[in-house]
Amino acid sequence: MLSFARRLLGRPLPRRESDSQRLPSLIALPILSSDALSSVAYATEAALGVLLLAGSGALGLSLPITVCIVGLIAIVVLSYRQAIEAYPEGGGSYVVARENLGAWAGLVAAAALLVDYTLTAAVSLMAAAQALSSLLPGLLAHETSLSLLLLALVGWANLRGLKEAGRLFVVPTYAFVVMVALLALFGLQNIVFAHGFRPDAPPAIAALEPLGLFLILRAFSAGCSAMTGIEAIANGVKVFREPSARRAQATLLVMGVLLALLFLAVSGLAYLYGIAPNPDRTVLAQIGLRVFGPGNPLYWFLQISTLLILGLAANTAFAGFPRLAALLAKDRYLPRQMAWLGDRLVFQNGIGLLLLVSALVIVVCRGNTNVAINLYALGVFLAFTLSQAGLVKHWWVRRGQGWSGRLALNALGAFTTGVVFAVIVVSKFDEGAWIVVLLLPLLVWGLAGIGRRYKRVYDAIELKPGEDCSVPWPDRRDPLENQSIVWLASWSRPTLEALRYAAQVSDRVIGVWVCEPEDDFEALRLRWHRLVGDAPQFELRLLESPFASLIDPFAQFVAEEEARCPGSQFTIVMPMAIPRRRFDHLLLNQRGLNMREALNAQHSRVFTLVRYFPPA
Amino acid sequence: MLSFARRLLGRPLPRRESDSQRLPSLIALPILSSDALSSVAYATEAALGVLLLAGSGALGLSLPITVCIVGLIAIVVLSYRQAIEAYPEGGGSYVVARENLGAWAGLVAAAALLVDYTLTAAVSLMAAAQALSSLLPGLLAHETSLSLLLLALVGWANLRGLKEAGRLFVVPTYAFVVMVALLALFGLQNIVFAHGFRPDAPPAIAALEPLGLFLILRAFSAGCSAMTGIEAIANGVKVFREPSARRAQATLLVMGVLLALLFLAVSGLAYLYGIAPNPDRTVLAQIGLRVFGPGNPLYWFLQISTLLILGLAANTAFAGFPRLAALLAKDRYLPRQMAWLGDRLVFQNGIGLLLLVSALVIVVCRGNTNVAINLYALGVFLAFTLSQAGLVKHWWVRRGQGWSGRLALNALGAFTTGVVFAVIVVSKFDEGAWIVVLLLPLLVWGLAGIGRRYKRVYDAIELKPGEDCSVPWPDRRDPLENQSIVWLASWSRPTLEALRYAAQVSDRVIGVWVCEPEDDFEALRLRWHRLVGDAPQFELRLLESPFASLIDPFAQFVAEEEARCPGSQFTIVMPMAIPRRRFDHLLLNQRGLNMREALNAQHSRVFTLVRYFPPA
Repeated sequence: MLSFARRLLGRPLPRRESDSQRLPSLIALPILSSDALSSVAYATEAALGVLLLAGSGALGLSLPITVCIVGLIAIVVLSYRQAIEAYPEGGGSYVVARENLGAWAGLVAAAALLVDYTLTAAVSLMAAAQALSSLLPGLLAHETSLSLLLLALVGWANLRGLKEAGRLFVVPTYAFVVMVALLALFGLQNIVFAHGFRPDAPPAIAALEPLGLFLILRAFSAGCSAMTGIEAIANGVKVFREPSARRAQATLLVMGVLLALLFLAVSGLAYLYGIAPNPDRTVLAQIGLRVFGPGNPLYWFLQISTLLILGLAANTAFAGFPRLAALLAKDRYLPRQMAWLGDRLVFQNGIGLLLLVSALVIVVCRGNTNVAINLYALGVFLAFTLSQAGLVKHWWVRRGQGWSGRLALNALGAFTTGVVFAVIVVSKFDEGAWIVVLLLPLLVWGLAGIGRRYKRVYDAIELKPGEDCSVPWPDRRDPLENQSIVWLASWSRPTLEALRYAAQVSDRVIGVWVCEPEDDFEALRLRWHRLVGDAPQFELRLLESPFASLIDPFAQFVAEEEARCPGSQFTIVMPMAIPRRRFDHLLLNQRGLNMREALNAQHSRVFTLVRYFPPA
Repeated sequence: MLSFARRLLGRPLPRRESDSQRLPSLIALPILSSDALSSVAYATEAALGVLLLAGSGALGLSLPITVCIVGLIAIVVLSYRQAIEAYPEGGGSYVVARENLGAWAGLVAAAALLVDYTLTAAVSLMAAAQALSSLLPGLLAHETSLSLLLLALVGWANLRGLKEAGRLFVVPTYAFVVMVALLALFGLQNIVFAHGFRPDAPPAIAALEPLGLFLILRAFSAGCSAMTGIEAIANGVKVFREPSARRAQATLLVMGVLLALLFLAVSGLAYLYGIAPNPDRTVLAQIGLRVFGPGNPLYWFLQISTLLILGLAANTAFAGFPRLAALLAKDRYLPRQMAWLGDRLVFQNGIGLLLLVSALVIVVCRGNTNVAINLYALGVFLAFTLSQAGLVKHWWVRRGQGWSGRLALNALGAFTTGVVFAVIVVSKFDEGAWIVVLLLPLLVWGLAGIGRRYKRVYDAIELKPGEDCSVPWPDRRDPLENQSIVWLASWSRPTLEALRYAAQVSDRVIGVWVCEPEDDFEALRLRWHRLVGDAPQFELRLLESPFASLIDPFAQFVAEEEARCPGSQFTIVMPMAIPRRRFDHLLLNQRGLNMREALNAQHSRVFTLVRYFPPA
């Protein structure tokens, strides 16, 4: 088993490899922005999907919606530049909200982010599967399996700790940017020269709903999924070379501009080519097909680079979720195991949890990204709002040079993202937003509950000031004040070893044999005396078991003895043979483990395994 | 969890309830013969299914085949009456083969029986589902799920230990016998009066294969599935009131006669009514429909009693398989856990294993019983042959009054069942018998392998004659010769308790703290000295961990210390806080368990948990 896991995941990495190398901006940019940039692969489509409900005539509204969202992007990018200034160590929404707005706000932000990371992984991989099945229609029926396969791949890479391959990530992001740029160039050229700049009419599709403000807001909310992932650079300031904050700010700006351009390009081309969403082929693929033509290798490059950048976006979630979970575990809002580093220096428990939950989301959604995208935008904007509001508080408290302008900008950010959050909740409530409205409080309640339990447990085991905390060395002329109770089940070497150890460390040794109906009491007594002789410190107890369990009578006997001598120390000694082959473990009596549980329940304090290792 | 399991399975039963009550023959008969009698619900159909391949004209051959099988039944019943005489304590094929023909023959019989029990459970429940879906055609598409549901029901009843309901089992078996008898009476009356004793012609179905000897042998092999379950009474002699052997012999005879009559009746009626097997409705249901008419409640009674007796037959497997597995575990051919009695005084591990494997068979067969029936008859006849051959040896060795006649009868039994075994292997090889031919040796090899491993393991831990087996009481004026190594991870009450215990039972205590990069060495040293003062017996070791694991450096340190002082005894002490709520277990550091594994691997002998139970 062990060696299989090791082969799958690689040899343990020494800690020093954990110190992440600082990266130049041109390499940090693609690594940190794959999530944000890749969202243009589905955001336009999500907005068009809503507009289409009002008939193909309404599709043109995607242009003003896109422009609004680009405005939002500008506000949020500028706000986050200030977050980098305030938290050059990397200020995720959780940290900013907790430090400025208190523990509860921090937990709300954390819950929103956990939901978000999960949905990022799921949505990106479902979109990646769609990018592939647009290319190979034979895969259409297998999109869910394909998404799960990609998920397994990304999970495996992360469990291995894929830092080694970090620089490889540069290629797909830049390739995607280049491909969309080419798409825009060729597309515009086509339109201008071949069509004389007349947009194509979309295929006539009848309206299912009237076109109203509410529908437009819904389309806007769906399009807001383009804004996911913007906070990644603000979280990852430490990745940059010095002066890291300055570099991060510059990179964030570049990323914002790129995102806005790509989004405008995709929405614009979709409008010019009159493209309506269609379940068999993504909007981006439809544009590619129209611009490049079906046989053109550029079309293939476009789809493949889309697939790859979406995979990278999922990968971002696999970096962010475990890191946040570890942070929460260190703050004792999640089980401590989430903060354990594995052999490959990754938080493997967080990765495992994310794998599980995002697989569930993929299976539940069955490849339809719409609901997930709704939920997702919601979490993103909640985290935006809390983080911006936290910064407002930050500037208000710290002041410093030019604080009022900074405060105003973050207040604008908090306000607009807050309004968008409210718009999404209301407009998408029926389409899944209610899930998040239900889930977030539950998550927050769960995190806070774990925090409360931890506080209780640690309070109970903490050494109080004034408590007697000395461990004196005992006087060896006194008795040891320790009695041992040894589990007897066979007359074998492990039993012999256990008795010898017990005699070594106690004043009195009680051997206990729980009898099965066929056991011969007299023979057992005789055998005992042959072993231990006549020393009065050795006692044998033969217990009958009224029920089938052999462990319960033993545990009960221990509880009775301990109750009879409350001042005295008892050591429960369990002989155990450890066979040389792992497989043989299954063959030997496994009662030891059950015994430990049963004695836990009886509040018995000291449990000792005396192991016997048979010679080769 | 515990309370849920208890509610599902019932309170623990005291051992005395395990002494099975002795039963009068009229109650033991239906309990022990449900397996054998129920097989007429599918045996005729299995034979007809093969004959149909040669066209509907060949169906009439089922009559001579049935007569042959009835002859076989007579031989086997008479042979088993002698088995009861030889083994009045209950002589299953495993015991008889092992005692007379040696361990290997015993294992072959055991493997055949294990396969058999599994297939009995699977085939009976699939046939039960068919009986129900013949009645309610809407269930046809859900036969597999239905079988699994019935399996869960039977498994649950057995995990509860259904002895309480034993007498209830009487009803379905007698009901089935009565219903088939009624079927025969009404059927014959119909035929004689309405048809003037002319058999109906079956529906014309074209031949797919020529009618040859091989096809007839295949049909015969399929029909032999009627003979499954005959050995049950010989296994269960102890269930009868005294004189139990005599009563069992008489009951076996009655059972044989009943089985022969029912089988003849079903095959005869199928012939007279010209019935051909058909996937939508079982042969028995077709007869019932023709005899009673569709609306008649008697038809419903027939199907329901068929369903119930088949459920009982599966139940027989659930009694037999775990009992045999426990027997094999006591003889150390299976892991000892198979011999553990649960709270409800049943071998729950065997029941669980049977549940698992028979569910697998049902899923793989997808409701088609044909392949399973082939495999099944094979195991039955192999067990018959070995048991009869064992008895031949038995009579040869023991002699006694009239031994030669007995030997001759068992020899005849062994010979005929051996020939049938060979016929089935050859004629059904393509249709699944090859699976058993492959599986049985594998199973035998596995059982023997486990036996060999057990022998090794027990040899290694056994006290050898002449070995020093005394446990002297040590002289308390000497040093204890015990050193403790205490795992430190926090300065808390559990740690304090662990250090105090270690000081109590050792000459020297080493506290080991495995440092994370952020730990402050000087502060740790200071804290240590405040706890333990200046006693020279206390030592602190601060270890750095080059890799992420905190456990590996500790385990390595232990190994080094133990290697440095090979004569000395080391006790590894692990502090552990046991929270009051079960849920809180998840929150506390689980490293203790991993530690035990790591120290196992290092061959460290004594591992002690010092538990701290926070006060309420």
